[in-house]
Amino acid sequence: MTAECNPVGWFEPGIVSTLERVKKGGGMTVDKINFEEKFRKLPAGDYAVGIVAKMNNYDIKIVKFKGEFVWHSHPDTDETFIILDGVMIMHFRDRAVEVHRGEMIVIPKAVEHKPSSADGYRALLIEPEGVPNTGDAESDMTIRKVDWV
Amino acid sequence: MTAECNPVGWFEPGIVSTLERVKKGGGMTVDKINFEEKFRKLPAGDYAVGIVAKMNNYDIKIVKFKGEFVWHSHPDTDETFIILDGVMIMHFRDRAVEVHRGEMIVIPKAVEHKPSSADGYRALLIEPEGVPNTGDAESDMTIRKVDWV
Repeated sequence: MTAECNPVGWFEPGIVSTLERVKKGGGMTVDKINFEEKFRKLPAGDYAVGIVAKMNNYDIKIVKFKGEFVWHSHPDTDETFIILDGVMIMHFRDRAVEVHRGEMIVIPKAVEHKPSSADGYRALLIEPEGVPNTGDAESDMTIRKVDWV
Repeated sequence: MTAECNPVGWFEPGIVSTLERVKKGGGMTVDKINFEEKFRKLPAGDYAVGIVAKMNNYDIKIVKFKGEFVWHSHPDTDETFIILDGVMIMHFRDRAVEVHRGEMIVIPKAVEHKPSSADGYRALLIEPEGVPNTGDAESDMTIRKVDWV
């Protein structure tokens, strides 16, 4: 019997809790998330970001990027990059760090940084909801609103 | 010239900010984190957890686990599992979800769950600082204090 033909099933506690979260959280369910599936839903191009999950008031996003980003910092929050594919060069004002698949880096709040990648990378990005992608540096790379994928 | 032979370098703004974070945050630097290196530092056995990074007031931990965990929930927070190797079966009271490498799951706060794995998994675990591993269910699996690795 499927949920569709068993309306009572929709009122089981777990389901109601999930629906409440969907209403509050904007799309989250308790199902797993497969990164490959989600990347296939991103638009074509060298740069795209999509939200795949919420954890409390944090967004968990997938991002693909190729090229040179803009220098920026986030005055109020740290930012976590977990590399899934490719190589990200994270530039700081005094050095650069190569981050590969199987590696991550946390950018401390207020620290200027600029990701770059000659061949492109794919990553998870974790930060509080609503943090602008270009931080304090408004540019033509600024994305006003990140969509769910 | 390295930082060791250039003491003035330690007072550049970025470095001072990092030192302040180390003092406050208990070990974080702006360097990248390699998961394989960190897993090698975990103690032997079927279950071990270590903190690898802080993001604001969140811990980013590595965990390895094989066997049956205990049923529990976290009354005040969601909890994120990102699977790096192996298969985690996440049991809920009404179903179970198989989570593989390249996949993640967010356990909503207050939802009962129990991870299990016949052959073991390795994962990243993200949740606020100080959240007990067995949540509301004190047991012999409860870890009082998670160390940095």
